[in-house]
Amino acid sequence: MSDTNIPFTALVDSLPASVPFVGPETLERQRGRAFEARIGANESAFGISPKAKEALIAASAEASWYGDPENYDLRSALAEKHGVKMEEVLVGAGIDGLLGNTVRMLAGPGTPVVTSAGAYPTFNYHVAGFGAVLHTVSYKGDAEDPDAILAKMEETGAPLGYFANPDNPMGSWYSADIVQGMIDRVPDGSVLVLDEAYIEFAPDGSAPVIDPSNPKVMRMRTFSKAHGMAGLRVGYVIAHKDLITGINKVRNHFEMSRVAQAAALASLQDTEFLASVIAEVEQGRQEISALADRLGLTALPSATNFVAIDMGRDGDHARAVLKALEERGVFVRMPGVAPLNRCVRVTVGTAQDRALFADRFEDAIDAVGS
Amino acid sequence: MSDTNIPFTALVDSLPASVPFVGPETLERQRGRAFEARIGANESAFGISPKAKEALIAASAEASWYGDPENYDLRSALAEKHGVKMEEVLVGAGIDGLLGNTVRMLAGPGTPVVTSAGAYPTFNYHVAGFGAVLHTVSYKGDAEDPDAILAKMEETGAPLGYFANPDNPMGSWYSADIVQGMIDRVPDGSVLVLDEAYIEFAPDGSAPVIDPSNPKVMRMRTFSKAHGMAGLRVGYVIAHKDLITGINKVRNHFEMSRVAQAAALASLQDTEFLASVIAEVEQGRQEISALADRLGLTALPSATNFVAIDMGRDGDHARAVLKALEERGVFVRMPGVAPLNRCVRVTVGTAQDRALFADRFEDAIDAVGS
Repeated sequence: MSDTNIPFTALVDSLPASVPFVGPETLERQRGRAFEARIGANESAFGISPKAKEALIAASAEASWYGDPENYDLRSALAEKHGVKMEEVLVGAGIDGLLGNTVRMLAGPGTPVVTSAGAYPTFNYHVAGFGAVLHTVSYKGDAEDPDAILAKMEETGAPLGYFANPDNPMGSWYSADIVQGMIDRVPDGSVLVLDEAYIEFAPDGSAPVIDPSNPKVMRMRTFSKAHGMAGLRVGYVIAHKDLITGINKVRNHFEMSRVAQAAALASLQDTEFLASVIAEVEQGRQEISALADRLGLTALPSATNFVAIDMGRDGDHARAVLKALEERGVFVRMPGVAPLNRCVRVTVGTAQDRALFADRFEDAIDAVGS
Repeated sequence: MSDTNIPFTALVDSLPASVPFVGPETLERQRGRAFEARIGANESAFGISPKAKEALIAASAEASWYGDPENYDLRSALAEKHGVKMEEVLVGAGIDGLLGNTVRMLAGPGTPVVTSAGAYPTFNYHVAGFGAVLHTVSYKGDAEDPDAILAKMEETGAPLGYFANPDNPMGSWYSADIVQGMIDRVPDGSVLVLDEAYIEFAPDGSAPVIDPSNPKVMRMRTFSKAHGMAGLRVGYVIAHKDLITGINKVRNHFEMSRVAQAAALASLQDTEFLASVIAEVEQGRQEISALADRLGLTALPSATNFVAIDMGRDGDHARAVLKALEERGVFVRMPGVAPLNRCVRVTVGTAQDRALFADRFEDAIDAVGS
């Protein structure tokens, strides 16, 4: 209990008041002015599909109605797109919330859970939030290490492991056969979350065939990245129907925005828009890579909408550059652990964002010195 | 474990696959056609504020950006409106989610929690979802019974109790002094959730002064009812800063839709629109009451946007009328437990909804017979 005699559970009492990420608006309030380039949260610089915007505006006429708690129309379209049954798809207000419910359904106080040190912090936040115990393995170079994750799951008896393909924050990826090999070796009685938030940006042949008959893997996808709908909150998971039932037992059934459902459905159908975003992101990655070359730095290969630029030294140096960029009106982020944190992570922005970044980046590096 | 060897927690394994509510869309899919009047979920028939719609459309230009996880602008406006500090306000994607986080932070497996039999089912769903044990007291007539709730909290040592003013599903309400008297008697080491989702529709003098220095009460409010934004998902809680910190330790920080934040902020400032909705609802309640009179039934007094009509017999009869209404294209709901379930609960619709309801209601009653 706190000194106000509030009867928090022992678990909540023990938790730190942490947040997985500080939002750019918080930084803007601290610095007293807006960023000129918001290229730190891997948000899409290319907006939402015009058809999604139309659908959103049309749906605003029904904004006073709750969204369908079954997400039937969207779920139906997703099932068709992925060649699975509707009962194998669950829509939620973003992958973050789906990760929370997944941890909740598979792990409790003391349960071992496995991820990679430096991987998605929000997963770790939920693991801590349900009192489970996080076990981490190191990246192998600049990629997550499937063998190490599996070995740690085996060793700890973890019922839950996390793996992202492509990876955030490094942008690295594996081919479908490597990932399928990993899925095939998930220990009995365990479940692997395969976070594919960035999969639309990856080369063909990066995503294994989706097979929801396998109860050992949960495929997580989002409308927040390629579809440009981070501010509308739509994600989904494809998994064995028993896993879907598990989430349905605990989820907030009316959590979905009705207008977001409509916008996501329209976006799904606008394949032309999606292709254009992917092409623009590809071009942006090449530009950022060329910029890094020009500055004598190395841009890591990326299958995402961001590029990790190796600053060639340690985390302190990269952080100094990041801070210098912030002072110069550019919001970027960086990995949280060594040696990944030798990089700054730059989201592919608009052409204007990229030009501004090129200018300020060089200036920031000069200011930090060598 | 299930037969697929999925490592669900024992709690999730034990939970039924229940939902707090069946959505109207599900019923529409079952009946194969849309309802002509959707007046069952206490959604607003009067849409969102034109200013909120403008803000929503403007914000769609930033739909690819995550919403501010601190909800700073909206929270700041809410703090000012209610004369509290920002640190005493927390914004979430609807009261449903806030209730879930509240249960999570105050109750775990086996923890006693108190509510009224027949009160908001979603609260009960969350209590079960975290393994806590629900203790219920009866309504006193057609209103929740503050004394009985407090006595049951005392008796069971429950750290958490639920009370709504005005009440759903009956529409009854208490004056501020009665509610304040209840708050004053919450046992030490316990917290009362005061759900005020419908407070805008209640007579002046129904809401006690908001005092977040008292760590024994959490005031929950929503944009889903009077503001007509159920499909956008915005609710908030005002409470002692330590309770807010507790929710911040476990909540999904990026759960808020950016466009919903913008729309809610605009709606908050459109006091004229809000006043017009409240006036239309008041008129609608009178019409429904007059209709009940004409049919020899009793409409219960209501301080909400719905009216419970006493059908004068038992739950089976009311359910038969409800089903007959469904067959006639009218979606309404009814209370879940006796003797409250002698009523059907009709949301105040548009003038057109009301005319259609008047017609179909009489017909449904005739069809069910006496």
